[in-house]
Amino acid sequence: MSWFDSSFHSTLLQQAVDAFSRLPGVGKRSALRMALYLLKQPCEDVERWGQAFIRLRNEVKYCRVCNMLSDTDICPICTDPERDSALICVVESVRDVMSIELTGQFRGRYHVLGGIISPIDGIGPNDLTIDALIERLGKGGVEEILLALSTTMEGETTSFYLSRKASAFPVRITTIARGVGFGDELESTDEMTLGRAIQNRQPFNP
Amino acid sequence: MSWFDSSFHSTLLQQAVDAFSRLPGVGKRSALRMALYLLKQPCEDVERWGQAFIRLRNEVKYCRVCNMLSDTDICPICTDPERDSALICVVESVRDVMSIELTGQFRGRYHVLGGIISPIDGIGPNDLTIDALIERLGKGGVEEILLALSTTMEGETTSFYLSRKASAFPVRITTIARGVGFGDELESTDEMTLGRAIQNRQPFNP
Repeated sequence: MSWFDSSFHSTLLQQAVDAFSRLPGVGKRSALRMALYLLKQPCEDVERWGQAFIRLRNEVKYCRVCNMLSDTDICPICTDPERDSALICVVESVRDVMSIELTGQFRGRYHVLGGIISPIDGIGPNDLTIDALIERLGKGGVEEILLALSTTMEGETTSFYLSRKASAFPVRITTIARGVGFGDELESTDEMTLGRAIQNRQPFNP
Repeated sequence: MSWFDSSFHSTLLQQAVDAFSRLPGVGKRSALRMALYLLKQPCEDVERWGQAFIRLRNEVKYCRVCNMLSDTDICPICTDPERDSALICVVESVRDVMSIELTGQFRGRYHVLGGIISPIDGIGPNDLTIDALIERLGKGGVEEILLALSTTMEGETTSFYLSRKASAFPVRITTIARGVGFGDELESTDEMTLGRAIQNRQPFNP
């Protein structure tokens, strides 16, 4: 029991604050604000929210094809006939899929690795869904895999590993463009990014 | 459905994110981070947390004497024989009780008003627990009430109203000291506070 908890005088309150403060980015004071906020909401709403957390954890599935979060065995993206099954975008996490979906620029399908090769964190190729990706390639019909991993050391290592594995199949391997971001100032762009953006210069199409 | 929600592809995930984003200070993106965090925690933990929220809302009580949050009909502070029942500190909210408890400087009891008189928000004296406070004073045994309300217009109005009501009883009415905070610089203290601090100057005891 910390100095802060000693002012609670209610086990119920303390348990709720403890629960909230386990969430990422939530300190004890924010957790308290959240718990006191719950008390002002209708019982039915709080019941529904609590159940939503529990159901999410207990009932959500991972797509058997691409490993994306899903309510069903195979996710809506993998079953959507309008999406190009010949193009697979490989990403690290569920959140990356969501970020790319928000752009509205990608109409292929995904493969979620569930992490990235990182010897320091003890994560090797076998901890990721790389075998499942290779299996997808083995079934044929895939023409291109687009590697959309971070530009960190681990991301580059994983991209390299995947490109070696995928080279056994007749697929084109691409990666998302690296360069200076829209709205970024040159003077605040790091040398690595700026250097690469100059090397990979493109025709100017006004 | 907002542009952000369209990238979810999972109703379970969306419901959990909606629930988190109802919390104070939590936006859609933080809510998503929280939901994805839940997925990585043991089922039992998530179950316990969800139940903690629901139980807090359904089972918590308000002390019949002081209106503080409590697991029992009368709160631990009101039943603690070591605390001075002749001294009542009047505060706006549960959180104020907790703030004062954290100082460790107060050994009396509390009275939580449950708000503050604010005509703009449509909150009048009858919406607060003022009658219950007067009833406590009427029972006798109280020697001092310490008004610990905000220094806002509403706080001052409420303090004034309470002091008028309490003046019918043989109690001393006090208020917490106002002045320059410890660690505050004079140049960044507002004139109102600094002016009052000069008026209420105190003997220097090094």
